[in-house]
Amino acid sequence: MKGMVITMVEKLKRQLRFLSEADKMKNISRQTFLADNSRAETDAEHSWHFALMAMTLFEYRGLDGVDINRVIRMALVHDLVEIYAGDTFAYDIKGNESKAAREKDSADKLFGLLPDEQAAEYRELWEEFDLMETPDAIYASAVDRFQPFLNNYLTDGHPWAKHGVSAGQIYERMAPVKTALPQLWEFVEYVIRDGLAKGYINQD
Amino acid sequence: MKGMVITMVEKLKRQLRFLSEADKMKNISRQTFLADNSRAETDAEHSWHFALMAMTLFEYRGLDGVDINRVIRMALVHDLVEIYAGDTFAYDIKGNESKAAREKDSADKLFGLLPDEQAAEYRELWEEFDLMETPDAIYASAVDRFQPFLNNYLTDGHPWAKHGVSAGQIYERMAPVKTALPQLWEFVEYVIRDGLAKGYINQD
Repeated sequence: MKGMVITMVEKLKRQLRFLSEADKMKNISRQTFLADNSRAETDAEHSWHFALMAMTLFEYRGLDGVDINRVIRMALVHDLVEIYAGDTFAYDIKGNESKAAREKDSADKLFGLLPDEQAAEYRELWEEFDLMETPDAIYASAVDRFQPFLNNYLTDGHPWAKHGVSAGQIYERMAPVKTALPQLWEFVEYVIRDGLAKGYINQD
Repeated sequence: MKGMVITMVEKLKRQLRFLSEADKMKNISRQTFLADNSRAETDAEHSWHFALMAMTLFEYRGLDGVDINRVIRMALVHDLVEIYAGDTFAYDIKGNESKAAREKDSADKLFGLLPDEQAAEYRELWEEFDLMETPDAIYASAVDRFQPFLNNYLTDGHPWAKHGVSAGQIYERMAPVKTALPQLWEFVEYVIRDGLAKGYINQD
């Protein structure tokens, strides 16, 4: 914090340093475009949209025991590791091979700014999300994938067309939606069929 | 939703329409700049940063009875009315005279996209936030104001200097922090003194 000289407790200084560093989420561009197709969205924007979507669609959850308050916290912290690791496009095979190691190093560095207890809390939320095993993490992953899916639909498949993504790849990526938000599955199938018909999604 | 023909329940269609429209939060520029001073932040980015800050600084709350889960929901929805009303700069006297009426119309239009029960829930969160009377709303308002304050500090007062904002105006704007996050008040005073000394905050 630019070497300020005040008596504020060291713990709070660390938290303000973390919150200042977290601002970099606004500098990370994703492959997903805004609904008006004007530019790529940022990680901060995605995280907000994901959290709002998780709370708005909660009544459609297909799993027992999902705690929406934990899911929203997961949404807020799930991409923080991209601050140093960068965004890895879901369909980038090579990038995804090195993703785990890059994100672990980034987590050490970023969460290390926080007081120990809070560092552990945020890290655990991120790790749980990433493992996709608990009801909270499965529901969160489904929404994390559905948000760009909806934006891709609204932009006539902009990133899918750009990267030549196929229907099979999208079905695989969207699989958690079938379990976690089953009433949305019909929409997922509709969009993929529509994209195939319009040519912005590739046949396998 | 581009006239899709599927059997999905009307209620869910309305929610997807709302979530598509909510994407416009990524198109609304605020006066606050990113910490690296590269561009103005968007409403979606601000809402995310506000929510993360609310959860990170919760231990410093100076009020009893704050429900952090409700505060986070408030953060996620508090600026949605700006989708049709636009962002009104905190120190814009004329803009703030017409703000309430513009935001009410916007709320009718945007929340009206949602099923009734959810529309009422989101609208109530926004109205409660706006009235700044309950512990949740006071704490939320303090964080909503502290987030741009921190970014303004990190950008050497960019919007304060641009608009000729004075120390007295900032003290008044930041007053909820004194009650809701008392341990941060010393930092607020430090930043204002520093900005006065460096000339990017005006004397009254």
